Amino acid sequence: MANSSDPRALFGTHLREIRQQRGFSQEELAERAHLHRNYVGGVERGERNISLMNIVELARALSVKPAELLKKVQ
Amino acid sequence: MANSSDPRALFGTHLREIRQQRGFSQEELAERAHLHRNYVGGVERGERNISLMNIVELARALSVKPAELLKKVQ
Repeated sequence: MANSSDPRALFGTHLREIRQQRGFSQEELAERAHLHRNYVGGVERGERNISLMNIVELARALSVKPAELLKKVQ
Repeated sequence: MANSSDPRALFGTHLREIRQQRGFSQEELAERAHLHRNYVGGVERGERNISLMNIVELARALSVKPAELLKKVQ
């Protein structure tokens, strides 16, 4: 787990919140976003430096704007 | 140059707008963001799938929130 003020951790924590609000498991989100569930887990734990195209895939899967996923990132 | 509806192109076009509003050259922005000027040029042309950490670097260099940089990305 990255330091909690790390941009990757801030992104991951907010992603997890939105996923849970939607009632999706990590596996469901991964499938909807065409990503591997281990990768999504790593992103939520702040271990991954996610790319723009994968941010867009996750945003589509969650029906939010890509900018919304970065809302907590400083 | 990527297709103009490609997320990379939408990001790059908006990045260029904000950079120009700030009156920075690509080279100045690159230096402030600790990135290579060729890389920043590629991002503005929509040729690069930029990572979260580099989005954060550019946002800091431009004094905007990271989410602001994704505002035009669909």
